[in-house]
Amino acid sequence: MLRMTIGPTRIAPSVLAKTALHPPAINDPDFLKMFAECTRDLRTVHGIEKGLVYIIPATGTMAMEILAASFAPPRSKVAVFSTGMWGDRWTESCRRMGLDVFRLPVNARGPIDYGALGELVAKEGIKTIFCTHVDSSSGLILDLYEIGRISKKNGAMLLVDGICGAGAEKMDQDGWGVDVLLSSTPKAIGVPCGLVMISTSDRATDWLKNRPWEPWTFALDLKPWVSVMEAHNKGQFGYVQSPAGNIVAGLHEGLRLILAEGIGPRVARHERLRKELHAGLEKLGLEILVKDVAYRSNGVTVILYPEGRDGSLLGALQANGLVLPGGTHPDYAAKTFRIGHFGNVTPEDISTTLSVLEQTLKASKAA
Amino acid sequence: MLRMTIGPTRIAPSVLAKTALHPPAINDPDFLKMFAECTRDLRTVHGIEKGLVYIIPATGTMAMEILAASFAPPRSKVAVFSTGMWGDRWTESCRRMGLDVFRLPVNARGPIDYGALGELVAKEGIKTIFCTHVDSSSGLILDLYEIGRISKKNGAMLLVDGICGAGAEKMDQDGWGVDVLLSSTPKAIGVPCGLVMISTSDRATDWLKNRPWEPWTFALDLKPWVSVMEAHNKGQFGYVQSPAGNIVAGLHEGLRLILAEGIGPRVARHERLRKELHAGLEKLGLEILVKDVAYRSNGVTVILYPEGRDGSLLGALQANGLVLPGGTHPDYAAKTFRIGHFGNVTPEDISTTLSVLEQTLKASKAA
Amino acid sequence: MLRMTIGPTRIAPSVLAKTALHPPAINDPDFLKMFAECTRDLRTVHGIEKGLVYIIPATGTMAMEILAASFAPPRSKVAVFSTGMWGDRWTESCRRMGLDVFRLPVNARGPIDYGALGELVAKEGIKTIFCTHVDSSSGLILDLYEIGRISKKNGAMLLVDGICGAGAEKMDQDGWGVDVLLSSTPKAIGVPCGLVMISTSDRATDWLKNRPWEPWTFALDLKPWVSVMEAHNKGQFGYVQSPAGNIVAGLHEGLRLILAEGIGPRVARHERLRKELHAGLEKLGLEILVKDVAYRSNGVTVILYPEGRDGSLLGALQANGLVLPGGTHPDYAAKTFRIGHFGNVTPEDISTTLSVLEQTLKASKAA
Amino acid sequence: MLRMTIGPTRIAPSVLAKTALHPPAINDPDFLKMFAECTRDLRTVHGIEKGLVYIIPATGTMAMEILAASFAPPRSKVAVFSTGMWGDRWTESCRRMGLDVFRLPVNARGPIDYGALGELVAKEGIKTIFCTHVDSSSGLILDLYEIGRISKKNGAMLLVDGICGAGAEKMDQDGWGVDVLLSSTPKAIGVPCGLVMISTSDRATDWLKNRPWEPWTFALDLKPWVSVMEAHNKGQFGYVQSPAGNIVAGLHEGLRLILAEGIGPRVARHERLRKELHAGLEKLGLEILVKDVAYRSNGVTVILYPEGRDGSLLGALQANGLVLPGGTHPDYAAKTFRIGHFGNVTPEDISTTLSVLEQTLKASKAA
Repeated sequence: MLRMTIGPTRIAPSVLAKTALHPPAINDPDFLKMFAECTRDLRTVHGIEKGLVYIIPATGTMAMEILAASFAPPRSKVAVFSTGMWGDRWTESCRRMGLDVFRLPVNARGPIDYGALGELVAKEGIKTIFCTHVDSSSGLILDLYEIGRISKKNGAMLLVDGICGAGAEKMDQDGWGVDVLLSSTPKAIGVPCGLVMISTSDRATDWLKNRPWEPWTFALDLKPWVSVMEAHNKGQFGYVQSPAGNIVAGLHEGLRLILAEGIGPRVARHERLRKELHAGLEKLGLEILVKDVAYRSNGVTVILYPEGRDGSLLGALQANGLVLPGGTHPDYAAKTFRIGHFGNVTPEDISTTLSVLEQTLKASKAA
Repeated sequence: MLRMTIGPTRIAPSVLAKTALHPPAINDPDFLKMFAECTRDLRTVHGIEKGLVYIIPATGTMAMEILAASFAPPRSKVAVFSTGMWGDRWTESCRRMGLDVFRLPVNARGPIDYGALGELVAKEGIKTIFCTHVDSSSGLILDLYEIGRISKKNGAMLLVDGICGAGAEKMDQDGWGVDVLLSSTPKAIGVPCGLVMISTSDRATDWLKNRPWEPWTFALDLKPWVSVMEAHNKGQFGYVQSPAGNIVAGLHEGLRLILAEGIGPRVARHERLRKELHAGLEKLGLEILVKDVAYRSNGVTVILYPEGRDGSLLGALQANGLVLPGGTHPDYAAKTFRIGHFGNVTPEDISTTLSVLEQTLKASKAA
Repeated sequence: MLRMTIGPTRIAPSVLAKTALHPPAINDPDFLKMFAECTRDLRTVHGIEKGLVYIIPATGTMAMEILAASFAPPRSKVAVFSTGMWGDRWTESCRRMGLDVFRLPVNARGPIDYGALGELVAKEGIKTIFCTHVDSSSGLILDLYEIGRISKKNGAMLLVDGICGAGAEKMDQDGWGVDVLLSSTPKAIGVPCGLVMISTSDRATDWLKNRPWEPWTFALDLKPWVSVMEAHNKGQFGYVQSPAGNIVAGLHEGLRLILAEGIGPRVARHERLRKELHAGLEKLGLEILVKDVAYRSNGVTVILYPEGRDGSLLGALQANGLVLPGGTHPDYAAKTFRIGHFGNVTPEDISTTLSVLEQTLKASKAA
Repeated sequence: MLRMTIGPTRIAPSVLAKTALHPPAINDPDFLKMFAECTRDLRTVHGIEKGLVYIIPATGTMAMEILAASFAPPRSKVAVFSTGMWGDRWTESCRRMGLDVFRLPVNARGPIDYGALGELVAKEGIKTIFCTHVDSSSGLILDLYEIGRISKKNGAMLLVDGICGAGAEKMDQDGWGVDVLLSSTPKAIGVPCGLVMISTSDRATDWLKNRPWEPWTFALDLKPWVSVMEAHNKGQFGYVQSPAGNIVAGLHEGLRLILAEGIGPRVARHERLRKELHAGLEKLGLEILVKDVAYRSNGVTVILYPEGRDGSLLGALQANGLVLPGGTHPDYAAKTFRIGHFGNVTPEDISTTLSVLEQTLKASKAA
């Protein structure tokens, strides 16, 4: 059974083996060393040299709220540049917190109108921008360089959910001017669920330290983690909430594998496999939701069901050994299915995916 | 090296082995069956027959906020019956959320004045009560039957952090009238960090379904989990945030071991070992923080440093092979050290702990 | 110069004379007697026998927020049945307070779809309903009996801005089941600006006394006024914020005049003059915004500019001695002008209004 | 009957006569001219040349919340330098709004420790300071020059309730660096209840215009008034909530009288009468709450009941023709009574007050 899902993705045996060791004491020197190495290696994945790296046990949604609660001043205006379901989750979380949310939806098929975001932010005097680097419901990838420019020009703080990009796409937090970047273990990083990884620029760290207000939450406030992670980044002990030792051990091995491959070659591999996949899909006459290749992410492809097909196709594929997830985009949920192709994905995975698709489409057409 | 800490506690090899299997797909039928069995077995641990059981990836602090955010009406009066550091964390979270918090501190050395809580709740018309079954900073255990009576009498909702009690103490959520009970994996349940387990009475579940207001948070709102867990309790699929498959697999095995031992015998074992430990400590002339045995928990003992001793004792113990954690109670942090003796703890662990303590105290006295 | 505006309306000389007396001490027995008589007479104007009457120095907008802040539980769902600018002000205030507002707009030209409100309230489980008895931007009058039925059926609290109805329309707070009714001095009551009058049913008063949460505001919270007004309703002293003694004296005389006329005859007079006015307008070929007479209020008429006319008409009218206000409805501001005909309005006012309108329209047409 | 109360104070007949004229239309050119002249004359009373002046119908408590809601960022730290009941009302309003309030109480008997405020503000990084120029419950007057220095040094916004000082004390908003100053009609200004007067420095006005967040309230938000008052300051029309025309007319006359007397001579008169009163009280052996003359306000004196006396003294005084108010300071309510001596107070008022006090104390002592 080949599972080409969004997550959890295929995990390397050496990563699993590490998660099965007995969890260390939270102040064990070896554990603190391992933790510090994780924060060091994440800098390469996130593209950040200075700044602070955090590893926190939480779900992706909780991590998004960590960012929103910690950085958006209460009752302030915020912009959400929404490329799908996860942009809408930013919106919902911000709305719940009582923020004045300006949701700017992006057409799921492209193109992406960065100018509209620039105008909105300038006109409304918005100082906090949320976006999703790669939205797994549309497959769209944002050009964070463009959004970073808008953010800098307007003196805004840019907060990015990079969960579906980190490990599969080029990440340059420093160069782009992303203030806070978020990733998580079970996507292209290839580690079991349980941890989120956050990196804050020096500007964002300072901002957090001097923040004159308090968020609605203690559990999801990043501020108490600052001094803990300043210690952890140096291999020292700190405590505010307990770390998840097993998964940190798994992450340590996962990052080792990524750096062994090299972040450049890894991104290049993802790009190559994406192109192969897309070429194959076109041959099969399947239409990719995102029209222009410039807006397509390396790791998630959303495909329109061909004429006369619907969700029952997924059952037929599964009967032939291929598990693919259905659509989740608010406008296209019932009209699309998806292929996850990031992390430890191989050329064989791509060719198997394409051939099962071809056979299943033919067979059921015949019937 | 013997670690008698509060957590993560010693984890059985079979539990670790289960966490090392590749994480299942989130809608895999075998995974859903395993998940449902976990919710079934947790009913025995929590002492709840009806009601709904939730398994959610989060830290303990996040879980506490899930309860506070989901059940305390915004800007309402709430009571926190605080037995130490974790009671104070309830207080801080409630304060952050803008609740009108009435903190009633309990003397860390006892006795516990339940009457004062009853008077406060009645006088102020409080409808939400928070408490910590066993506070790991004091070692105090609350009589939840007494607090349940106060809650029922005043028509209040009773929300209990049972993290340091579940698996080591008798739990009778139904009988006590606890509306919402919370536990987590890495304490007496003996499973790696990563999951919290919540059970809501039918009254609390209905209350949640019909709740006429929204909390400040989406990520920490229990309401969207209700329908997901109603499905999961029956082995069906549901989705709001991704489950942590590996840890669920570990929990499945951990609960199997607990039920194989039997919850009654397991609690009796904890009680027996606690008495042995306390008898030994007294022989050594060490004074336990909680004076009266009626208020002492089965799994955490907080001890006053003997005259002339301080935190340096912990280093000396560690040099002799015993790791003990320092104090964390707001009033006694520097004056106490602690022994964690829950989960997979054995009679040998107790006798080793006592003999290393004896030798270390003697040796350093001689010097 | 004849001013047929929405307010301040024409004030009787005896009322003005009373406001010019030196303000009494706030605990002067004569002042307290006068205050109690005002609350007694307001019961006739509001149509409430039991319950509690409040007289508070505030603007209408502040009074609307007193109701919203005091009665809508924080972050709860509320419905606003919006008949124009003042319904939208309910919406804005509720939104600011962080309520989950369901705004149901009513077509300014009618008809009024009460069924839609009933469905919304039932479907969303809404427990707080806001509406405007007469919205001065549309001239629409709501049938509060119908809305009271919806409210009762759904166990909701009904809060009504009766500012432009009280003193000109039949008011039956008891019979309709309106929980809280609001009016103010400078409309059909015929007293200078400065006071708002609120009446709460016994149910609403009890609800307020036992309210388990606090609003965002102290200054606009009705709860501290309850005991003060329980005293004042009986002619006794109470204090939370200073009363505006001069205007209370004016209100005392204004209410005496209303009761001397008789509330029934007064409403009948308003109805008669409204019909005369509308008949005259039709003769002039002018179109009233509210099409069906069933939805037309007694005291405010909104008129569409005839073909080819705009706001400059108001200047021409003023040059001929008639002051009329422009439009304020969000959808019709530039397309309408208004006539205020409540309070101390006479048949001569109506005939003068019509004749100046006729002459001005003719003259300027000729030109 | 001589009333030496805190308010409403004695009102000049010409002021009362003006309030008895029929209220003008809200866009009447004469009314707009009158309004602009009021804002001009208030500059002299508040001691502000540039900046913006607002006249708003509201109570003093509502005005305090207008300042708190409009200027303190949500959930930020604020300092309240509390000199009595009105400082505590700042505290309660700020607490309700969810601000993180640091209340620094001042000893009601003096001295005033400005250094403690400076340290608090610096240590906590507080950016909003609230205080009461003269607190009518203690009679203490703050040196706003000192507080202005602290505010400037820390980059904080200084918001002052000047209700009991304006018209009786030297006011130098510009020189002191007070960002927002508040006064009201019925104290030393000598006009009936109903209006509050606010002046914002250019810095505060700009801050308001560019404020990136929204308060919890629309009705008490100063921001929508900015453009309205920018128009009104120039004699032009603007609208957000209806003005109270009668009281504006009264204020116009009240300010004319103040400027005719001259603000310097008026303050000197208040100082002279205060000294006469205090000398007389000392002769009678009565002890003033505020010990040091440096901290005594010109218009309110709080006096400790002599040994063996209590509130019944006030009844005896009233029987002899003198009305004095009881104590209201949280710590001294039952131990003190008060004399209000601001506004249109005369030397005869002072001597009558002293002689009735003397006779009543003697007579009742004899009895």
